[in-house]
Amino acid sequence: MGKTEIRTVCKVDFDKPASEQPQLHNRWHPDIPFAGTIADGETVKIECVDWTGGQIGNNDSADDMRNVDLTKIHYLSGPFEVEGAQPGDLLLVEIMDVQPFQDRPWGFTGIFDKSNGGGFLDEIYPSAAKAIWDFEGIYATSRHIPGVKFAGLIHPGIIGCAPSAEVLATWNKREGELVAANKLADREVAHLPQPINVHAGAASNEIAEKVGQEGARTVPGRPEHGGNCDIKNLSRGSKVYLPVHVPGAKFSVGDLHFSQGDGEISFCGAIEMAGVITINFKVIKNGVEGMGLKSPIYIPGPVEPSFGPGRYIYFEGFSVDEHGKQHYMDVTVAYRQTVLRCIEYLRRFGYSDYQIYLLLSCAPVQGHVAGIVDVPNACTTLGLPMDIFDFDISPAAALKAGETKRDLGSCAFETGVTEGKVTKGGKNSQISFGGGLTYKE
Amino acid sequence: MGKTEIRTVCKVDFDKPASEQPQLHNRWHPDIPFAGTIADGETVKIECVDWTGGQIGNNDSADDMRNVDLTKIHYLSGPFEVEGAQPGDLLLVEIMDVQPFQDRPWGFTGIFDKSNGGGFLDEIYPSAAKAIWDFEGIYATSRHIPGVKFAGLIHPGIIGCAPSAEVLATWNKREGELVAANKLADREVAHLPQPINVHAGAASNEIAEKVGQEGARTVPGRPEHGGNCDIKNLSRGSKVYLPVHVPGAKFSVGDLHFSQGDGEISFCGAIEMAGVITINFKVIKNGVEGMGLKSPIYIPGPVEPSFGPGRYIYFEGFSVDEHGKQHYMDVTVAYRQTVLRCIEYLRRFGYSDYQIYLLLSCAPVQGHVAGIVDVPNACTTLGLPMDIFDFDISPAAALKAGETKRDLGSCAFETGVTEGKVTKGGKNSQISFGGGLTYKE
Amino acid sequence: MGKTEIRTVCKVDFDKPASEQPQLHNRWHPDIPFAGTIADGETVKIECVDWTGGQIGNNDSADDMRNVDLTKIHYLSGPFEVEGAQPGDLLLVEIMDVQPFQDRPWGFTGIFDKSNGGGFLDEIYPSAAKAIWDFEGIYATSRHIPGVKFAGLIHPGIIGCAPSAEVLATWNKREGELVAANKLADREVAHLPQPINVHAGAASNEIAEKVGQEGARTVPGRPEHGGNCDIKNLSRGSKVYLPVHVPGAKFSVGDLHFSQGDGEISFCGAIEMAGVITINFKVIKNGVEGMGLKSPIYIPGPVEPSFGPGRYIYFEGFSVDEHGKQHYMDVTVAYRQTVLRCIEYLRRFGYSDYQIYLLLSCAPVQGHVAGIVDVPNACTTLGLPMDIFDFDISPAAALKAGETKRDLGSCAFETGVTEGKVTKGGKNSQISFGGGLTYKE
Amino acid sequence: MGKTEIRTVCKVDFDKPASEQPQLHNRWHPDIPFAGTIADGETVKIECVDWTGGQIGNNDSADDMRNVDLTKIHYLSGPFEVEGAQPGDLLLVEIMDVQPFQDRPWGFTGIFDKSNGGGFLDEIYPSAAKAIWDFEGIYATSRHIPGVKFAGLIHPGIIGCAPSAEVLATWNKREGELVAANKLADREVAHLPQPINVHAGAASNEIAEKVGQEGARTVPGRPEHGGNCDIKNLSRGSKVYLPVHVPGAKFSVGDLHFSQGDGEISFCGAIEMAGVITINFKVIKNGVEGMGLKSPIYIPGPVEPSFGPGRYIYFEGFSVDEHGKQHYMDVTVAYRQTVLRCIEYLRRFGYSDYQIYLLLSCAPVQGHVAGIVDVPNACTTLGLPMDIFDFDISPAAALKAGETKRDLGSCAFETGVTEGKVTKGGKNSQISFGGGLTYKE
Repeated sequence: MGKTEIRTVCKVDFDKPASEQPQLHNRWHPDIPFAGTIADGETVKIECVDWTGGQIGNNDSADDMRNVDLTKIHYLSGPFEVEGAQPGDLLLVEIMDVQPFQDRPWGFTGIFDKSNGGGFLDEIYPSAAKAIWDFEGIYATSRHIPGVKFAGLIHPGIIGCAPSAEVLATWNKREGELVAANKLADREVAHLPQPINVHAGAASNEIAEKVGQEGARTVPGRPEHGGNCDIKNLSRGSKVYLPVHVPGAKFSVGDLHFSQGDGEISFCGAIEMAGVITINFKVIKNGVEGMGLKSPIYIPGPVEPSFGPGRYIYFEGFSVDEHGKQHYMDVTVAYRQTVLRCIEYLRRFGYSDYQIYLLLSCAPVQGHVAGIVDVPNACTTLGLPMDIFDFDISPAAALKAGETKRDLGSCAFETGVTEGKVTKGGKNSQISFGGGLTYKE
Repeated sequence: MGKTEIRTVCKVDFDKPASEQPQLHNRWHPDIPFAGTIADGETVKIECVDWTGGQIGNNDSADDMRNVDLTKIHYLSGPFEVEGAQPGDLLLVEIMDVQPFQDRPWGFTGIFDKSNGGGFLDEIYPSAAKAIWDFEGIYATSRHIPGVKFAGLIHPGIIGCAPSAEVLATWNKREGELVAANKLADREVAHLPQPINVHAGAASNEIAEKVGQEGARTVPGRPEHGGNCDIKNLSRGSKVYLPVHVPGAKFSVGDLHFSQGDGEISFCGAIEMAGVITINFKVIKNGVEGMGLKSPIYIPGPVEPSFGPGRYIYFEGFSVDEHGKQHYMDVTVAYRQTVLRCIEYLRRFGYSDYQIYLLLSCAPVQGHVAGIVDVPNACTTLGLPMDIFDFDISPAAALKAGETKRDLGSCAFETGVTEGKVTKGGKNSQISFGGGLTYKE
Repeated sequence: MGKTEIRTVCKVDFDKPASEQPQLHNRWHPDIPFAGTIADGETVKIECVDWTGGQIGNNDSADDMRNVDLTKIHYLSGPFEVEGAQPGDLLLVEIMDVQPFQDRPWGFTGIFDKSNGGGFLDEIYPSAAKAIWDFEGIYATSRHIPGVKFAGLIHPGIIGCAPSAEVLATWNKREGELVAANKLADREVAHLPQPINVHAGAASNEIAEKVGQEGARTVPGRPEHGGNCDIKNLSRGSKVYLPVHVPGAKFSVGDLHFSQGDGEISFCGAIEMAGVITINFKVIKNGVEGMGLKSPIYIPGPVEPSFGPGRYIYFEGFSVDEHGKQHYMDVTVAYRQTVLRCIEYLRRFGYSDYQIYLLLSCAPVQGHVAGIVDVPNACTTLGLPMDIFDFDISPAAALKAGETKRDLGSCAFETGVTEGKVTKGGKNSQISFGGGLTYKE
Repeated sequence: MGKTEIRTVCKVDFDKPASEQPQLHNRWHPDIPFAGTIADGETVKIECVDWTGGQIGNNDSADDMRNVDLTKIHYLSGPFEVEGAQPGDLLLVEIMDVQPFQDRPWGFTGIFDKSNGGGFLDEIYPSAAKAIWDFEGIYATSRHIPGVKFAGLIHPGIIGCAPSAEVLATWNKREGELVAANKLADREVAHLPQPINVHAGAASNEIAEKVGQEGARTVPGRPEHGGNCDIKNLSRGSKVYLPVHVPGAKFSVGDLHFSQGDGEISFCGAIEMAGVITINFKVIKNGVEGMGLKSPIYIPGPVEPSFGPGRYIYFEGFSVDEHGKQHYMDVTVAYRQTVLRCIEYLRRFGYSDYQIYLLLSCAPVQGHVAGIVDVPNACTTLGLPMDIFDFDISPAAALKAGETKRDLGSCAFETGVTEGKVTKGGKNSQISFGGGLTYKE
C-alpha cells in the first residue's frame, strides 16, 4: 500500500561515451526507435547527460570549450513511447522536478570561439571562455565568477516529440532555403542535416544512416514541436502541451539547465548539467485541433525564485547598433544593445566583460520586449536582480565603484590565454543578426 | 508645520486645443523654452493630456482613430528646468504616482489603419479599431472587450530630457540614412522632422520654425535619452536615471498609459489617457560618466500587480513567419508569431481577432526574449495572465470553448464597418520587420 | 456616451466638527438613519474623516495624542442603504481604490498614554508619542522616523454593515459579561455603550439617545459583521463578503489607513488619515446561508507591495514573557515577545524604542502564527522588510551598527518631554493580555 | 579540481530502530556526545528520520496515530560539533536544500487522539486520523484528501543548538512552575523531563540516565535556542542565526516537513517525513552580544511558492469562542475561530471536517495576527490558496457547492471507525487555550 519509488525509465552511464548509449540520440527523426515506454498518466524519472555528452570538464581551462564538437550535440534521452498517443493528440507534460545528480553537483557555462559555434555577442567577444558552477542544494556559485550566488530556475532546454516525416521535410526545406539565400560570408545561418557523429539511439545501421541524411539538428527550437526552446521558466511545476506527430509520441528531453537568463546569450549559456527530470505524462486526445495549437504552450509552476519587482536594475536598449547605425524595428539588435549596456555597468565593479557575458547567459535576468511599434526603434529591457550579488551593485554603489574595485578573479580561457579578445566586429556587426532587408542596395 | 499640498508645476486645459497650450510641445529640440522650474530635490505634479492631444473620443466609432493626425503627436508636458542640472549630470526621476483625472476616468486603445500609422500586425489586421476603457480606482474594464478587468500598471510612455544640438544632429542623420536606404515601397520606416503641426511650446515664431525644421519626432525612443520607450513596468515607484544633455535638463513627460502589454503591439496600444504624474527630481552631478551610462536605467517600485507565476499561460513563437519562411535569428518575427499564437488561442472563446489585438496591446502580458542563440530560430514567449478574465481561459476550458461560445460583443470600427479586415499580407509580410539581410538577392 | 465621473455619495467638511456632520456617526446601531442610497451594482466614492474626527494635528507635539477623547471615536461615513439588501444577504464590497485627499497629503501614527487608551506594549512604553507621515503618491515618509520610506498597502480599518437589534443585544451581553468578570484592577477590558459624545448621524434626539444607551462602540471588530478588523491586506482590489443584518444593509466605512503592520500594535498604530474610498457594491441574495458565513471573508487584490521572500528579517517569539514566566500556548504573549525582539534589533541602528514601536505599528510587517501546538510554547514570527529602510539593516550591518550609530532624530512627545518612559510593568505584565486561566490560585 | 560530492555527516538506517542509532537523540541536554564534526564554513548533508522515528506507516489506518508513543519524540540528528563555536557565538546556518529520500517519496499528517497528544482543535475533533501524502518532485498529493495538490515549502520543524546547563535549568524551572500552577484537570500543559524511552545518542549509561532526568523534551520551541519552532518559511535558502550555548555548538536538526500551514494546527500537522537536509555552517564570533539576539532570527530564501495575493480566500476570526463567550485580546482563541470558519467553508464542497483539519495543518495557509489592540477582540486571518485545489473553491463556487457535492473520499481513522467524532467540548473549551485570567473567580 502506498506509493513506491518513482520508476526511472532511462538511466545514463558516465563511464561510457554518450554515443554508445542506446537510450540517447542526437537528431530529430521519426524512425529513431523507442527507448522505453511510459503509460498514459504515469510519472517517471528520466536521467540525462549534459547537452555535449560530457565534452566539457570540471577544470580551469576553456580548451574543451574551444574544441567542442558540435556535430555531436545535443544528446537527448529518448525517444519514449507514451501509450495511446497518436498524431493530432497533445501530450500534457508536467515537470515535477529537475535535479542534478547528487554525485555530480556541478555544471558549466561556456562561450564558444567565434569560429566554432559563436554566440549572440561573438563579433565583440570572439574568444572561448568557461565558468564552472558548484551546486549546493538550490544555489549555484562559481570560482570563475566570484561574488554571485543564485537559486536555480532549473529546467530542460529541450523538450518535445519527434517530427513526422512530413514535418521533418518541411524543416529541411525551410532551413535549406535560408542557407541557400545566405549572403553572409562567414556565418553559418542554419545547421542542416549532417551525417557526422550521428547518434540514432538503438537504430539499425540502415536506419541510422537515414537519420544522418535526413535527421534535423537539435540546435534550433521549431514551432511545430518546441524542441530546443531554451525557455527559462519552463521549469519545475510547469505543464507543457506538446503536439504529437507520430504514433507513441516519441518524446525526448535533455539539455538540462540549472539556470538560464532570457536569451541564453552565449549559446552554451545556461548552467549546463547532467541530471534527472521527473515528469508526469497525460495524453489529450485530438488536443491539437481541440485547442487549436500550432506551437506548444505552457503554464509555469508556483516555485519561481522571486526577488520583488524593486530588486531589479533594468537596462534599456534600442535598435541602434554599436556603430551608431539605425536599424528598423529590429528587436535582435535592440536586445544586443541592452545586454551591452548591462555589461558596461557591471564592468565598473571589477568583472571582466567575459565574466559578465557568461553571467548574463545563466543568471535569472529578465529580457523583455518593451516597445515594438515606435518606428524605427524597437526597445527591449533587461532586468538584473541585485540580490544575486553578495555586494551592493545599486546605482549608488556604481557611482563609487571606481574607488573600491574588487579583485573578482577570472573566468577560464584557453591554455595560455589570460584575457579574452574584445573586437569591434566586421561586416556582420554592421548588419546585425536580425536586421537589414529594408536597406536599399 | 507639516507638508502642504504637492505643487502642480504644469496644468492642462481641456477646453483649449493642446496646440495652444504653451506648457506642451510635440517635438524634441533644445531650443523649446522652459515651461516651468523645479528645484533639485523637489516633488511636483505634472498634468498631461493624452498623447494625441484629445483627438480620440469616448464613443463607439473608430472614425477618429482612422483619421488621427500623427503629425501632431505626442503632446508632452514640459520642458521643465531642473535647477542645477548640467550636461553630463544624471537626473534621478522617481515616479511617486500616476493617476487619471478624477473627472475623466477613461482611456482608449486603438488600432491605426495600415495606411495611417499601422502597427505590429498591420499586414494582417489593417483596419482601424478602438476600445474605450473605464477606470474605477485601480481597475479598467471596457464595453468593447467584455469579460476582462485588470489593475493598471500605470506609467508614462515618454520620459526624458531634451537632446543637445549635437545629439539631435546625430538622430537626424542616423534616421535619415535609414529612410534613404529603405527599399520597402509602402512602409515609412522612420519619421523625420516635419514642419507640420509643430508645437514648440512657448517658443517665438522664429524658434518654432527652427524646431519644425530640425526637431526630432517623438515616436521612437532613442538610446541617448530614453524618450518614448513605452516600458510597462517603468511605473509607480520607479527610479529612472536620465542623462542630461542641456543646461537645466529640459525634462519632458507624457503619453500616460493606464496599462500596457510588452510590445504595445497595436502602436496606439496602451490604454492611453490624460492624467497627472507626481515626480521627485534629484540631480546627480557628473553621473553620466560616474555611472558610465549610455542609455537610461531604472529600478521599478514594489507595487507591480502580481498574479503568481502559475497563473500565466505562456505562448511560444519562433522566427518562422506566417508564410512558413525561415528567418535568421529575428526576434521581431518570433515575437509576432508568439502574439499570433495567443490570438488564435483566445479566438476560441468568442473574441474577435481585433478585440484580442487590442487586448494584448494593453493588458499586462509578459513578452520575453527566451532563446536568441539557437540558429536560425529566435524564440520568444508571451505570458497571458488568466486572472484578468472573469471566465476560465485555461487549456481545459479552451478544449471545451467551442461548446459554449460566448457573446463577447465587438470593438469599435469605422462608421459602417462591423468587422475588421483580416489579410494575408503582401511583400512586406514576407520580409517582416526585422529580418532579411541574410538573404541573397 | 461613455462613463462619467464616479458619483460621490458622501462628502465630508473639514471646516466643521465631525460631530456636526449628519453623514457621519460613531456607534453601531440599527436605528441610525441612512446617510445615502447606493444602487445594487453601483460604484461610488465615499469621503471619510480620520478615525478621531480631526483631533490630531500635523505638528511636532504629542499633546493631542495624550489628550485624545476616545468617547468620540471612530467617526464612520454612513450608514448607506444598498438597494435590495435584506437580512440574510451578503454584501459583496469591492474596494476599487483608497486615496488620501490631494490637499491633505499626510497622516499620523500615535501611541496613546497608558492611562488613556494604551496599546499592545503599554506596560513597557506607557508614554504618549506621535509620528507624522507625509504622502507623495504611493510612498510615505516621516520627519519623526527618518530613514524609512514605504509604499502604502492602503485600506479601511473599519468596514461592515449595521447589527440588527438582536445582534446588538448579543454584543452588549457578551462584552458586559467580560467586564463584569474582569479582575484586573487597572485595565479596561471592553468599551461598553457610553452615552457621551455619541454621534448618531441624522437621528432625532430621541433616537440619538437610544443609540447612546445601546449603541456598540466601534473599537473592537466583531465576528458577526467584521467592523474594526484592522486587516492590512484588506486593501485596494479586495472583495469583501459582508453579512447583512438589517434592511438596506446600513453599510458604514471609515478609519482609513495609508499603511498598517500586522497587529497595529500601538492601537493608534496605522498611518491614520482622512481620504476617499471607492467601492463597488453587489447584493448576493441569501448569501449568508448560501455560503454558510459566520464572519466576513475577503479575497485581496493583485497590487500588494511585494519585496520578495528573501528581503525580510524574521524575528521569533515564544509564550515566555519578559519576566521569564511560562504561559500556556498564549499567542498574544508570543507575539508581544516577537515584537520586542524586533525593537531590540532596530534599536542598535540608532532609533529609539518609541520610534520603532510606532514604525512596527504602521509599516508592512508580516505577523504570523507559526506554531500553535507545541505545548506550552506558542511561536509567532514577525517579518520586517529590509527595503523600507534607506540604509542597510541586515544582520551583517547590525553587527557593525555600534560603530556608526546614526542620528535618527526623535518622534514627537508631549510638551516638555524629550524621551518616552520605559518601564518593566506591574501586575498585568505578569499576567499578560491573553494568558493565565491555567494557573491555580 | 572542482567540487566533489557534498559530504554526508549523518546517515540513518531504516532497518534499525531509531532508538538504536547513536547519531540520533530525543532530548535536549548539553551532555549528549557529539555525533560528528563540521568545519566552520562547511556544507554538509544530514539525514533525518521522521519525528516519530518510524512509528507511522504508509497505510490506510490511523491505529498507529492513535497509539503513538510520544515519550519517544522527536528523534533528532546530532548533536554536531561545529569547529570553533563557543558560547556567545552565533551559528549562521544556511539551509541549502531539504529533500525526502528518493526511495521514500511519502509523508504523513496526523491528528492525535485527544487523550494521547491532542491538538489545537482537540476539544472539537478528538479522534485520531491520518492522511498519507505522496511526493512527486515538488508536489504532494494524498489519496486521503483528493482534489488537492501543492508544492512543498519544505523545512525542518526543529533546528537549534544544545542548551547549556544553566539554560536547561531555566527551562525546567519555568515549565515546572507552569505545571504546578495548572488547574485544568484533563490537560497536560507542559512536558517535563521524563526518563522513559530516552535516547541520548552515543552517551554512556550514566550520562543517558542524567539526560533522562534533566533533558528537556523537544516538543516546545524555546526562546533561548529556537528548537521546535515549526516555522513554515524557515525553508530552503533560509539563513538562520542560532545562539550557541555550549562549546562546539552541539547543533541538532530534525522533524522535517514537506509542507506546513501556519500554526501546524493538528500537532502532527505538517507533512512529516524522513529526508536529507543540506546545510552550510558559519560561526559568527561573539555574535549574540554583537547582534543583541535573545532568540533566533532568520532570512528566508527566494524560492517560496507564490500564488499571487489575489489567489487567496481570507477568513477572519475574533476572540469570541464557539460558545459565544468573549475573551480579552486572546489571539489563540481568535486563531481557533478563524480556522473553524475555514473548515465550515470547505465542508460545503464535500470534504469532512477531519480532512480539512488535516489539510489546514499542512497546506501553505497564511495565518496572520491582524489586529491585536481593539479591545476586547483580537482579530486573526487565515489565507487559503485557491490554487492548491483542482476544482473551483471561490465564493461563487461555494454558493453552488450544494448542487454538485463531490465524492471526496475519506481520511484514515482507527480500525473500525469510519467517521471522526465532532464534539462541543467541555470545560476547557470554555476557557480556551490562551485565555481567561481576566475573569474574576
